[in-house]
Order: sequence, then C-alpha cells, then structure tokens
Amino acid sequence: MIGDFVKTGDFKGEKHVPVICGPDKVKKGEWFEVEVSVGKEIPHPNTVEHHIAWIELYAMPEGAPYILRIGRYDFSPTLEEPIVKVKIKLEKNSKLIALSYCNIHGLWEGTKDVVVEE
Amino acid sequence: MIGDFVKTGDFKGEKHVPVICGPDKVKKGEWFEVEVSVGKEIPHPNTVEHHIAWIELYAMPEGAPYILRIGRYDFSPTLEEPIVKVKIKLEKNSKLIALSYCNIHGLWEGTKDVVVEE
Amino acid sequence: MIGDFVKTGDFKGEKHVPVICGPDKVKKGEWFEVEVSVGKEIPHPNTVEHHIAWIELYAMPEGAPYILRIGRYDFSPTLEEPIVKVKIKLEKNSKLIALSYCNIHGLWEGTKDVVVEE
Amino acid sequence: MIGDFVKTGDFKGEKHVPVICGPDKVKKGEWFEVEVSVGKEIPHPNTVEHHIAWIELYAMPEGAPYILRIGRYDFSPTLEEPIVKVKIKLEKNSKLIALSYCNIHGLWEGTKDVVVEE
Ligand SMILES: [Fe+3]
Ligand SMILES: [Fe+3]
Ligand SMILES: [Fe+3]
Ligand SMILES: [Fe+3]
Repeated sequence: MIGDFVKTGDFKGEKHVPVICGPDKVKKGEWFEVEVSVGKEIPHPNTVEHHIAWIELYAMPEGAPYILRIGRYDFSPTLEEPIVKVKIKLEKNSKLIALSYCNIHGLWEGTKDVVVEE
Repeated sequence: MIGDFVKTGDFKGEKHVPVICGPDKVKKGEWFEVEVSVGKEIPHPNTVEHHIAWIELYAMPEGAPYILRIGRYDFSPTLEEPIVKVKIKLEKNSKLIALSYCNIHGLWEGTKDVVVEE
Repeated sequence: MIGDFVKTGDFKGEKHVPVICGPDKVKKGEWFEVEVSVGKEIPHPNTVEHHIAWIELYAMPEGAPYILRIGRYDFSPTLEEPIVKVKIKLEKNSKLIALSYCNIHGLWEGTKDVVVEE
Repeated sequence: MIGDFVKTGDFKGEKHVPVICGPDKVKKGEWFEVEVSVGKEIPHPNTVEHHIAWIELYAMPEGAPYILRIGRYDFSPTLEEPIVKVKIKLEKNSKLIALSYCNIHGLWEGTKDVVVEE
C-alpha cells in the first residue's frame, strides 16, 4: 500500500530525504524546537516545475496503538524553501517521522528517535 | 517507517477505512469523478474531540517509479462530513490510494484499481 | 489588509471567481451537498505553470461574531480539476464564502447566501 | 466579503493576532528567516476544544496586481504550538500578511512591511 511507495535513504547522498534536527532527549510535556527540512546537505530544486510541495510531521509514541500527526507545512515554489522550525511536545519516547512530497519524485520519509524523560 | 503505522481493513466492518468510489475503467487523459470518504458503511464520529481531520488522494501508475499526489481535503469537525467528490484524470492503469487521519485513531488507507484505456 | 487584495467578479466573465452551487434553503443541522469550483463557465488553465492551487470554504452565520472555516481543498495541477462536492451543515442563515488561489493571479472569492429553516 | 470578517488588533493586547518577526530590510532574492506565530505576548489556549488550527503567510509586493501565497502551516492541537520559523525571499518591497484561524474565534491577520534592496 502507500508504505510501499514511500522512499527513504541517507539525506547526505539523497536530496529528497527529509531531515529532522532537534534534541535527542527532552522532558515529558515540555515544548521544544525541531527543524524539519528537505535538501539540508544537497539542495533540492525549487522551481515551479520541480519542487518540494509540503512536509508533514508525525510522532509514533513507543508502544502506542496509533500514530499522531503533529503538523503539515505547505510551501509555494520559488517563494519559500522547504525548511521549518516548529515547537512541539511529546509525552513518551517517540519516533518522529517526516513525510515530504516532491511534485516529480513522490513521497520520501526521514525519522528521528526522541527519548522522553519524566 | 510510516507504512508500518498506516492501518487498513474492510470498510464494511472498520469505520476508519477510506473508500474510493468511481469507475473501474476510464479513458486515458479524460476527466472523471471519484468519491472519497470515510464512514461510508459505519459512520465515524464527527465531533471536536473525535473526527476525521483530512483525506489525501494519491495515484500509483503501473510501472511508474514515483507516486503522484492528486489532492488533499481538510475537514472541520461538526461543520463538514469526511466525503468529497473530485474530478481527476489518469494516463495509465493506476492504483488510487486514499490516506485518512482520525485525530484519535491515526492513519488509515484504502485503495481502488483503475484500468486506463487508450 | 488581506481583504484589500482578494478579488471578485461575475464568474460568467471572470474565470477565477469561485462558484458555490447548492440549495438556497436547507434545514437546520441537516447535511447537504454543495459544489465549489473555479472555472465553471470559462475554464481556468490547469498546468504546472498556471493553475488553481486550492479552494477554502467558509460560512459566516447571520449575526455571529466569528467566521467559520468549513474545509480546505488542495489540488495538484494537471491531475485534478478545481471542483469539489462536499457535505456540510448549517445552524443559522449563513453566507457561504469560497476563497481560491491561482498561483499567478492571486486570491479570489465568491459567495452564496443560504437560508436555514428550523 | 471575507475581508469584512478578518479581525486584527495589537498582538500585545489581543492574543489572536498573528505576529511576523524578521528583518525590516532584506536583499532582493536572498533567503531570510521569518517567525510567524500566534500568542507571542499572551498565549492562546492550545486544547482540542480551542486552538489555532493554522497560519497562512502571504506577500503583497508593492505595486503588484496580485497577492502571493508563501506558505501554509497546519497545527495539531496539544501537539504543536502555533509558531513557525520559515525561509522566504522577496523580489520587491512587500507587505507580509499572516492570516490565522482559531476554531472558535475565526480569522485574524497581522502584517509586516519589508524593504527590499537591490
Ligand atoms: Fe525532486
Ligand atoms: Fe476514530
Ligand atoms: Fe489564473
Ligand atoms: Fe481563540
């Protein structure tokens, strides 16, 4: 299904992979900042014909039955780069997952594990 | 990754599964209507506390390397039901995939194969 | 402010104006269908370079202090036409307002008054 | 029309007004960061029942006929605060306009003028 068509890789060699930068460890329920971007190491084109249209950020809490959608960021080509810094909080150890979409090269994902301390 | 956390099932028994209704066969490059909805057989709650927040529609063309995002439909709870009729076109045999999000029960997907004739 | 930059006109002569089609009178709290589209009379281009990116639907209930956002519909150029049929409900006489965005020609609005009966 | 229903005010006294923070002067065509937020001075509630659902960022270039939509940021209540830092560029002196939506208190706008130097 859709998971079969979401690509990933090492963002250092593959410019489509979204990158999540932020702390490895946070306090439970305290706001912290993460940066989510595409093209951190190798810039992706940003033209009307070829661009990153959006990034969506999710959290999968350890042992939870359901994934949480944190936010969605739509970019207009040539006017904005596909990078956002956002303010989030977590209640449990979680895997953050960023899903991004290139209008030519489809869906890509990147993840980051975050430890949550009481 | 994200594919591991997208659930599915038979929409007749599981109210979260998005349903795609439309023709099984279409003409290449001709516009046609599809209905995409959640809760077709068993209605899903539609309250501020528990609701379907959005549905996103994709097409995976047979043999293509990348998935296409067709559209995204955001719903405001209590004001709108999670059902849209949209007008799309395809160039090749494709698997339509709908991805939906319940603010409590996470991501769900449903698919429909469409044959595209010259 | 933003209202100064939202254009409108007669959709029969100006292809950007969103059109809301549906009943003039509905029952309070009962779901009904409306069609929201751009280019109903004169089609708007639908290319990567020039297209309608999204339509957002609002309701302003008579005498209410605040506007309600009903839904938002994002379209991918060439894959989808800017037309949706959605299922909404109203509690009071309302002005429905559709706001749409052309990636070249900016923001446009169209409205429809709906009488709500007990 | 919609402009009649978009509220504004001084963000220091009215918690709904979106605030745009960034440089007053930038170089033409060079990327710069702006922070767009709601509740900068007086925090807005962030609960499922009452929250800022999204902020949309626009630019109105001086003397241009049409407004540009830069980006759109959707937030999930309780998981994310309505604040983003984004990377944009401008070609001309512009008025940046942020439009935000509270699920209870409707649409609000805030603006910032940016001078663009050759
Ligand atoms: Fe690409
Ligand atoms: Fe649910
Ligand atoms: Fe146009
Ligand atoms: Fe509020």
